[in-house]
Amino acid sequence: MLGKTRRLALLAEGCFNATDAKSAVGVLRYRTSEVVAVIDSSRAGRTAQACAGVGGDIPVVAHLEGAAAFEPDTLLVGIAPPGGALPSSWRTVIAEALMRGMDVIAGLHMFLADDEELAALAAAKGCMILDVRRPPAARSIGTRLAANVDAMVVLTVGSDCNVGKMTTALEVHAALQAMGVKSAFVATGQTGIFIADRGVAVDAVVSDFVSGAVEQMVVEAARDAEVVLVEGQGSIHHPGYSGVALSLLHGACPDAMILCHQAGRTHIKVFEAGPAPRIRSLIEIVRDHERAAGWMAPSRVLGLSLNTCALDELEAKRAIEHEAHRTGLPVVDPVRYGAQPLATAIVRRLEERRRRAASA
Amino acid sequence: MLGKTRRLALLAEGCFNATDAKSAVGVLRYRTSEVVAVIDSSRAGRTAQACAGVGGDIPVVAHLEGAAAFEPDTLLVGIAPPGGALPSSWRTVIAEALMRGMDVIAGLHMFLADDEELAALAAAKGCMILDVRRPPAARSIGTRLAANVDAMVVLTVGSDCNVGKMTTALEVHAALQAMGVKSAFVATGQTGIFIADRGVAVDAVVSDFVSGAVEQMVVEAARDAEVVLVEGQGSIHHPGYSGVALSLLHGACPDAMILCHQAGRTHIKVFEAGPAPRIRSLIEIVRDHERAAGWMAPSRVLGLSLNTCALDELEAKRAIEHEAHRTGLPVVDPVRYGAQPLATAIVRRLEERRRRAASA
Repeated sequence: MLGKTRRLALLAEGCFNATDAKSAVGVLRYRTSEVVAVIDSSRAGRTAQACAGVGGDIPVVAHLEGAAAFEPDTLLVGIAPPGGALPSSWRTVIAEALMRGMDVIAGLHMFLADDEELAALAAAKGCMILDVRRPPAARSIGTRLAANVDAMVVLTVGSDCNVGKMTTALEVHAALQAMGVKSAFVATGQTGIFIADRGVAVDAVVSDFVSGAVEQMVVEAARDAEVVLVEGQGSIHHPGYSGVALSLLHGACPDAMILCHQAGRTHIKVFEAGPAPRIRSLIEIVRDHERAAGWMAPSRVLGLSLNTCALDELEAKRAIEHEAHRTGLPVVDPVRYGAQPLATAIVRRLEERRRRAASA
Repeated sequence: MLGKTRRLALLAEGCFNATDAKSAVGVLRYRTSEVVAVIDSSRAGRTAQACAGVGGDIPVVAHLEGAAAFEPDTLLVGIAPPGGALPSSWRTVIAEALMRGMDVIAGLHMFLADDEELAALAAAKGCMILDVRRPPAARSIGTRLAANVDAMVVLTVGSDCNVGKMTTALEVHAALQAMGVKSAFVATGQTGIFIADRGVAVDAVVSDFVSGAVEQMVVEAARDAEVVLVEGQGSIHHPGYSGVALSLLHGACPDAMILCHQAGRTHIKVFEAGPAPRIRSLIEIVRDHERAAGWMAPSRVLGLSLNTCALDELEAKRAIEHEAHRTGLPVVDPVRYGAQPLATAIVRRLEERRRRAASA
């Protein structure tokens, strides 16, 4: 991860479950072999699988010292709290990791390398602090350039935060590759960057430059790909993150979108007091995305990714059938049943584009 | 301005005309008595009025030394180039101003106070460098809180950048005050901050926190106002700035909007190569804004502000009549003919809200 194969201890103190430790779960799912232990004193002694449904027998330990037996060389701060501030108790653990000569990788809004004490510790011990959310120095303004790339650009969009946009993009990417399609994945958030070893955390970019950053990544990825899968962020319907989501939509200028939703979620997650907005019907959400994308370039939602992690097997199948019936679109839970139907819809659209291009 | 009444020299080197020197023109229009000279060597010897249509007899001089006779105490960097970088030749002028003991006020994306040489100079001379685009340290995430304030929130929105959103908000604000309505103006860009002495340049805020910053300002302004006029930024149809515009829309949760457009402009201004998007009909733009606002809270466009600065008197009147006929909305050029019809539409809506509230 990020420069070399690592032996990671994942810090997820107090929040290591399937829904709250988003970064830790993502890394466990896609970089499993690099994780040696998860730190969460409230769940010590259990396995990763038992706590979060991923990671098999990887042990959960109470503190960094407990992880030492598994010889980690890197501490990964696997949390992304609203506001991005560092829980004060975690600071001690990070300092301890640096004291032990470990690298530290983090995706916080506040940058650990800018903390004088931590930076001095890292320098003294010859360790690296990697803040993956730090925006690139080069800034550009979006110009709708991504609408003109030859590759087919696909963006995952969502009814809310934390519904499965990154996971869907990664699963579809893998399914396309398995079908022999040259697919590229563009990471736009800290967990995606942990997994893909590159990308830009767009929510940490100054607002004027978000669509430009996305455009640059898409144009770059499109050079050597037939399909570019772009990880979505937030939701155009989220009171806090709608601007980030629209910048992504207009920076990527996707030819197609996959709408992600968590089955059973009825209200948008808002982190402060006050009534949370209701989540609209998926048909309305599809329509709003196609309209908003169309302000820049025409785009269609090709399928739905339904996160059924809160449902049992029977409920999951019913929820999927229900949405497929209502929307007339292919619907899957890519984690539970694979992303094949979504990949197939994309390939069909890709062939259609090629026929159109050939006859033009 | 910003702490005291100042004697400003406006730096607008090479670009002091009505359309390119946006900040200088705004300051000249609304803080006229504080401006002693404008610096633009390519237009030296003329008056501000002759160059930019505002500022009366205020002289345009070739360099800072030429302004010295008018005893400026502050240099205002009156430009906001795309990307926000500092033209290298301007650096010398800024250093010279500090050497002379003048304060420097700037609205660039790069912060002058972070430049070691300039900061050292300012410290040595006891001068201040004010970077008005520097975002506030406190960060929050938008929660749709502004939808619940008692005051009526009005946002100016646009078909593009640089069409008159700030000017319209300021003119309507003044017209409301003249009608005895307690109105507050919320500045969201560097020129607005120069004029209002407070505000946040939202395009310089990290994208996750834009709607939160707007929400905070609106809630604060609403405490002591009947109407809160929020300065819009960019356009939801602009490939580079759509995210900023949507964050503003969803952070402010306006009850009403005023759509601003420059008569005769057919394509969105994009700063790089590539075909610029066509500007849609104003009816479509109204509809798109009402829909996008509605994702958070219902909102209506109450009127149009048509910037007719490129037209002669007859053309201006025809353009206004044409749009009024097509949209069925009140249409004015507030700079040319005053903002009264827009203020009247707002007051009518305010009374309607009060009747609804009283009968509820």
